[in-house]
Amino acid sequence: MTVARKMLQTAVSAGVEICFANPGTTEMAWVSALDQISGLRPVLCLFEGVCTGAADGYGRMKGAPALTLLHLGPGFANGIANLHNARRARTPVVNLIGDHATRHQDADAPLASDIESLAKPVSAWLRSTSSPEAASADLGEAIVESGGCPGQVCSLIVPADLAEASLSGPPPSPRPRRTPPKVAADTIDAVARQLHQVTEPVTMLLGGNALSREGLEAAGRIAAKTGARLVTETFPARWERGTSVPAAERLPYLPEQATAFLGKTECLWLAGARSPVAFFAYPDIPSVIAADIPRCVLAKPEEDAAQALIELADALDAQAQPPFAPRVAAPPLGTGGLDPLQLGAILAHRLPEAAIVVDEAATSGLPFSLAGSGAADHTLLTLTGGAIGQGPPCATGAAIACPDRTVIDFQADGSAMYTFQSLWTQAREGLRVITVLCANRAYRILRVELARAGVAEPGPHARALTSLESPTIDWVLLAQSLGVPGERAATSEGFDAALRRALAAEGPAFIEVVL
Amino acid sequence: MTVARKMLQTAVSAGVEICFANPGTTEMAWVSALDQISGLRPVLCLFEGVCTGAADGYGRMKGAPALTLLHLGPGFANGIANLHNARRARTPVVNLIGDHATRHQDADAPLASDIESLAKPVSAWLRSTSSPEAASADLGEAIVESGGCPGQVCSLIVPADLAEASLSGPPPSPRPRRTPPKVAADTIDAVARQLHQVTEPVTMLLGGNALSREGLEAAGRIAAKTGARLVTETFPARWERGTSVPAAERLPYLPEQATAFLGKTECLWLAGARSPVAFFAYPDIPSVIAADIPRCVLAKPEEDAAQALIELADALDAQAQPPFAPRVAAPPLGTGGLDPLQLGAILAHRLPEAAIVVDEAATSGLPFSLAGSGAADHTLLTLTGGAIGQGPPCATGAAIACPDRTVIDFQADGSAMYTFQSLWTQAREGLRVITVLCANRAYRILRVELARAGVAEPGPHARALTSLESPTIDWVLLAQSLGVPGERAATSEGFDAALRRALAAEGPAFIEVVL
Repeated sequence: MTVARKMLQTAVSAGVEICFANPGTTEMAWVSALDQISGLRPVLCLFEGVCTGAADGYGRMKGAPALTLLHLGPGFANGIANLHNARRARTPVVNLIGDHATRHQDADAPLASDIESLAKPVSAWLRSTSSPEAASADLGEAIVESGGCPGQVCSLIVPADLAEASLSGPPPSPRPRRTPPKVAADTIDAVARQLHQVTEPVTMLLGGNALSREGLEAAGRIAAKTGARLVTETFPARWERGTSVPAAERLPYLPEQATAFLGKTECLWLAGARSPVAFFAYPDIPSVIAADIPRCVLAKPEEDAAQALIELADALDAQAQPPFAPRVAAPPLGTGGLDPLQLGAILAHRLPEAAIVVDEAATSGLPFSLAGSGAADHTLLTLTGGAIGQGPPCATGAAIACPDRTVIDFQADGSAMYTFQSLWTQAREGLRVITVLCANRAYRILRVELARAGVAEPGPHARALTSLESPTIDWVLLAQSLGVPGERAATSEGFDAALRRALAAEGPAFIEVVL
Repeated sequence: MTVARKMLQTAVSAGVEICFANPGTTEMAWVSALDQISGLRPVLCLFEGVCTGAADGYGRMKGAPALTLLHLGPGFANGIANLHNARRARTPVVNLIGDHATRHQDADAPLASDIESLAKPVSAWLRSTSSPEAASADLGEAIVESGGCPGQVCSLIVPADLAEASLSGPPPSPRPRRTPPKVAADTIDAVARQLHQVTEPVTMLLGGNALSREGLEAAGRIAAKTGARLVTETFPARWERGTSVPAAERLPYLPEQATAFLGKTECLWLAGARSPVAFFAYPDIPSVIAADIPRCVLAKPEEDAAQALIELADALDAQAQPPFAPRVAAPPLGTGGLDPLQLGAILAHRLPEAAIVVDEAATSGLPFSLAGSGAADHTLLTLTGGAIGQGPPCATGAAIACPDRTVIDFQADGSAMYTFQSLWTQAREGLRVITVLCANRAYRILRVELARAGVAEPGPHARALTSLESPTIDWVLLAQSLGVPGERAATSEGFDAALRRALAAEGPAFIEVVL
């Protein structure tokens, strides 16, 4: 049996079901082995950034890692941006990277590169396999270390000759994946005592699996008991929300707005969230948001924040509550020209039960971010690491993880252009992804940033560098070229009708919304 | 004056004319500064892999660096694959990467990452600027170090606050760019003496600027005088060829073929070429090609091989010669179904004088590679580093460097899908690029590699992972969606007519060739 086959059997034994692949010559042993085993479904992506973004979306929804299969340094490098997002989301992902055969590495062949230097910045666990005997155990360890929810990105580099080698004996027995560390009972008791003592309501900043249904239900009990305000990180990896889930407010993006939003609360309790910092630096604005509010930690980002909230709610004797917040009435559906407000309202209004919304809509997405809390129950996945081009592949992976749910990729145009190849995989796999593409034909956020930097009237170069016009991209044609049927909407009624058609259809669909 | 403005003035003073940009928030100071200076033309690319591939194509044709402007670690990472190709091509490229403001770096904001670790594998020169005062000098040094032909990739990381700072005083005076080291006269004399003594004709393996017109003319004189055989590297960065240039044969791709091709020559003389190695390792085939043939070095890859050949020809008293090889008669243009042979013949036949051909046609490209030596004079740029997705951006950059020449991107479909965003830039800039897309609807090279690995009949997973079918990509729609007019050809007559129409038109054009 080849080492490659044994490795893939190890992965299957450890519960890995999906491999997002864009292999090359050095990965042929695994490609062949995929036909010799069962239980591991390969999904071809036509660019590595799609593989890694799909693995991120899959891992966020499944709480378990997918494999990626990537080709040497340059192939891996194409996947780094979305691994950066996965790292920030604490998504379990296992990258399997073929390298040149051991005996070929001194030759410095054209594709040779320093894969470890490339992989290190995005990998919590990184190893180069050194012998055929070690390969399966190494992959098993990568899977164990990838964990679950929260998890981490693990990368294994395997020279092609080791994967091609023959080896007898069974693959190693899998160990269970690492689970997130539990918060110590002492910590929970201490927090409970402190919450009894505070004189004014506190604010809880929720992140990680605190934003699961279980976590939010516990947080809702605590809020009802103590008056605590529930706030989510600005870019949660996965946020369950809708009418039947206790609502939380989302921390604003701009640092001065975030600081004002948090106001004068006595303490900022962190439950699975990092202490908030500005996305970018601005003159005279501190990096730390609301720096004068003390932080107290209930659960670190890598810990099981949901379980900590449940135990805290129990310690506070906080009873189960009906949903914490009333359904936010969606604004009335308007007619005529579309703007982000109308778009968000229609999307919130039409959202099917149990939808998964991937929000990479950037400046066009804010109204939905607010209106969506009152929509049907859904899962929201956001751009955790700021590396654009996450939406289309993340939606692809989420749809593979959850074939019975509708996935909506709520998508900015500038970002979509980075990983548009995802649509081909959506078409090939018949995935239930509806892309709602917000065509404002600009890197609008950069216009905002230019204005913040004092450039109210950008010159011709600055305008050109932030414009997606000249030529205008025909997104409907682009989607069709990759096998996804599309239509264009420029009015509220038009978008509403297009969305209803897409929801009634099967397979992927695409709507270009002209803003 | 801002540091950013001063830096760009430094670049202009040093002769930099073009900036391929996909900026983000941390690059806004340079975006603003572009409107405050003159002489530096920004070109927006909708993905960083297009920026870096375009800088590679530009640098190969211009012999001078373009700037790239890239956003933090993830943005830079998207450009790594084509920088890998540029590194292998020894192309002068200067990457300017914005980083978070100095005071913001401890915050570990969402986009923070280890840019140096990402940049090191592809950068011959790498620096993080540490003060506003140093920034312009650092950029000047990067430009100096990038050199020319051959040159190298230089990367400068500048925190946003340093770029935004104000600074008085003029920008530093530019130093001239580094020129490639000259080969020592002693070496040339020694080679001349050895060539007098050899008893059988030698083979000269040409790379780097040995494949310039000057280099090849000198090599042709040497060949005529000594009977030396002229062979090029398998993947030359830039190869001048056609009826009026001494012809050279191209070293085959597969190692056993390359070794057989070189045969029993007494010595392999390296002029700007690396000692040849296999692209990939195969069982029982050595990594070093023709390992039993001694190597002798006239010029190292980083040296001025063209000048060394001229001096060697003079030392040998080799007279100027008429073109070394007769024009290879193009095979007759056939009719009916197209195959790579017909495609190559038609392309060679119709090639306009002084065309630039970017060859990323992979398995479909071999016949043109042979037939093209007898075509009208043209420049051939190839996939030096094996990182696919090089053709469309490289053609984009070459067209910007040489606006009076027609660029033909002879392109494989699997590779094109990596960086098809290039077409939008071709449309926006009105570039004279004709993409000839070879749609064999497979990663055909991987089928070859599977067969070489003994998998004559790939299983369903291996077939699916090497197929671009289901769905079939409609390349003509895709090109049109990005503003490039396209048509499809499935017969020899159809391709010939489409190519003639494209050559007669202005601006970019696209032909999908169904193979």
